[in-house]
Amino acid sequence: MLGLAGIPLGFQFRFLEPSAGCPAAIAGEVIPTDYDDLDGLARLVDGLAVATYEFENVPAATADWIAQRCDLAPSARALAIAQDRIAEKCAFRDLGIPVQPFAAVSTDAEAVHAARTVGGPCVLKTRRLGYDGKGQCVIRETGDAAVVEAVTRGWNSLGRVACILEAFVPFTAEVSMIAARGKRVHHANPIAFYPLIQNVHREGILFRSVAPAPCDPLGELACAAQGHVQRLMESLDYVGVIAVEFFVTDAGLVANEMAPRVHNSGHWTIDGAATSQFENHLRAISGMPLGPTGVRGACAMTNLVGTAPVTAEILAIQGARLHLYGKGVRPGRKLGHITLCAEDPAALARPLDRLDACLKWG
Amino acid sequence: MLGLAGIPLGFQFRFLEPSAGCPAAIAGEVIPTDYDDLDGLARLVDGLAVATYEFENVPAATADWIAQRCDLAPSARALAIAQDRIAEKCAFRDLGIPVQPFAAVSTDAEAVHAARTVGGPCVLKTRRLGYDGKGQCVIRETGDAAVVEAVTRGWNSLGRVACILEAFVPFTAEVSMIAARGKRVHHANPIAFYPLIQNVHREGILFRSVAPAPCDPLGELACAAQGHVQRLMESLDYVGVIAVEFFVTDAGLVANEMAPRVHNSGHWTIDGAATSQFENHLRAISGMPLGPTGVRGACAMTNLVGTAPVTAEILAIQGARLHLYGKGVRPGRKLGHITLCAEDPAALARPLDRLDACLKWG
Repeated sequence: MLGLAGIPLGFQFRFLEPSAGCPAAIAGEVIPTDYDDLDGLARLVDGLAVATYEFENVPAATADWIAQRCDLAPSARALAIAQDRIAEKCAFRDLGIPVQPFAAVSTDAEAVHAARTVGGPCVLKTRRLGYDGKGQCVIRETGDAAVVEAVTRGWNSLGRVACILEAFVPFTAEVSMIAARGKRVHHANPIAFYPLIQNVHREGILFRSVAPAPCDPLGELACAAQGHVQRLMESLDYVGVIAVEFFVTDAGLVANEMAPRVHNSGHWTIDGAATSQFENHLRAISGMPLGPTGVRGACAMTNLVGTAPVTAEILAIQGARLHLYGKGVRPGRKLGHITLCAEDPAALARPLDRLDACLKWG
Repeated sequence: MLGLAGIPLGFQFRFLEPSAGCPAAIAGEVIPTDYDDLDGLARLVDGLAVATYEFENVPAATADWIAQRCDLAPSARALAIAQDRIAEKCAFRDLGIPVQPFAAVSTDAEAVHAARTVGGPCVLKTRRLGYDGKGQCVIRETGDAAVVEAVTRGWNSLGRVACILEAFVPFTAEVSMIAARGKRVHHANPIAFYPLIQNVHREGILFRSVAPAPCDPLGELACAAQGHVQRLMESLDYVGVIAVEFFVTDAGLVANEMAPRVHNSGHWTIDGAATSQFENHLRAISGMPLGPTGVRGACAMTNLVGTAPVTAEILAIQGARLHLYGKGVRPGRKLGHITLCAEDPAALARPLDRLDACLKWG
């Protein structure tokens, strides 16, 4: 989708992709190699104006290697923070962005200490390489002894790798704020914020995003989220698109995690915003002016997971736009998404009902 | 642009393109051969569900050959009519669609007769293969003898090929109606009309299109144009997108010509309409439901001819969207276009002024 957004702007692309059957091949040369293949990396950076990534599990060493040879945006530092749930939570906390209680777990003693400090219910997650609910262990127990035992058992089941124990957050909704920060113009870097997005997950995978967030009719949460994201971007001297996920609680927003890249909860921007997150990411990292980010009416994005729908059924839904990624069908795989746009949030209800009747999940 | 519109729908493409450096290569296999190369044509149609064209000078014999081997939409008959200015004008006239006085010129005697019948001022055009003002001769003379002499001279200068002499139409504006007609559903073929588009030409080449047409604030011309285009599509059992250009005169619309394809005056629909003309053409020819065609606010498309602008200057204009076609720079060549979208027509004025200050033409 980055490639498709860049073609009309006259950009040329080269992609490094370790997996076979890279859908990006439509938009430029693909180097089908591993992240640690120095020959492949050298071919990747040859003559590049700027490099970027849309997957935060790119190894830090690869990002550093690239950053030494060409402009890399977002920076290797932003990537490193996003790759480590402890560093991420500390970065939030140090900037005054609310986070739930958390503690590191990398020894048996830390497991006991974390369980006692954080308490139950809580979630044990690997510090690295988790996504879409993988590498997680939910602990429903309460009471010191039960929590200690459950955390220890959970940590063993996750292979005794470095983990984070996070207090469970009793949330009423999940939202994300997506923003783009450009390169320096005069005294400051311009920032463009998209409307606050409300997200619904199924089995740990994003099912649906709606913008503007129905849980925030007065825009107060959006305002708070903008402040948090602006501080985060400025502290990292960030360039590009970022997504920060928050829980909505009775006490306000609690930051969950950041993605230093275009984000699934922003896919609706292709059809529903004046400038897509993909185009704004390219504009930002190439030093171009950012484009406007307002939503046209209301917009809902629904992921196609595991099963592709019947195209004609989808296109028969008023305002539905289909985006297939050209990937092979596989259980749990994101195969595409569908955007529904309407004049206002209430007008989304009927087409969403029709859509849900056409979809399978999984 | 058809290819880019089809990728997210999961369509696969194969292109036949006689010229080198085909920009469509991003969206599928290109067969770089001539229209009369039967081996190339055989490779083109192998396994195709449907074939289409986006250039009306595809030879009629090629279209017929393809239509005998796979579904071709729009039909070879629609293409043949659009290729012959006399057949086109007769088709309009037979359907009650207003046309200016015209006459065929293919002999010296016909030149004299046409000059006397049509009178001056008038325009002599080749019946075939003209576009963007090429193959035309404007006759400003009035008075029988002067017109006869000028038409005869003009016909000789055009190489004495089959021509049409058309009365000059004193128009106040030029508009186009773009519509898509799908495949049969129950008893009728569905038709979707885009808003009426107002066009400005420079040196015979489209410079700018604005939708909805500012010259039609009450929508009366749009209504008349819809009626004309519907009759035309139904008479041809048309499937796909069509564009019909009209002159606006004190007496109402006068049809100028039809294009049996996606049309330059509809390029704004990528950014400014709920469904682009490219996607609706693909939906129509593949038997899918058509998408909604309303304009979001107001939209202006400006062609980039001969010279590419500075990307950063264009992207700094509020609401500007850049579309480069990946073609080499050449005088008079359409290299891309820029769309400006705004809440209403009045809000287009300032960004259009800014845009005009960034552009060169030619």
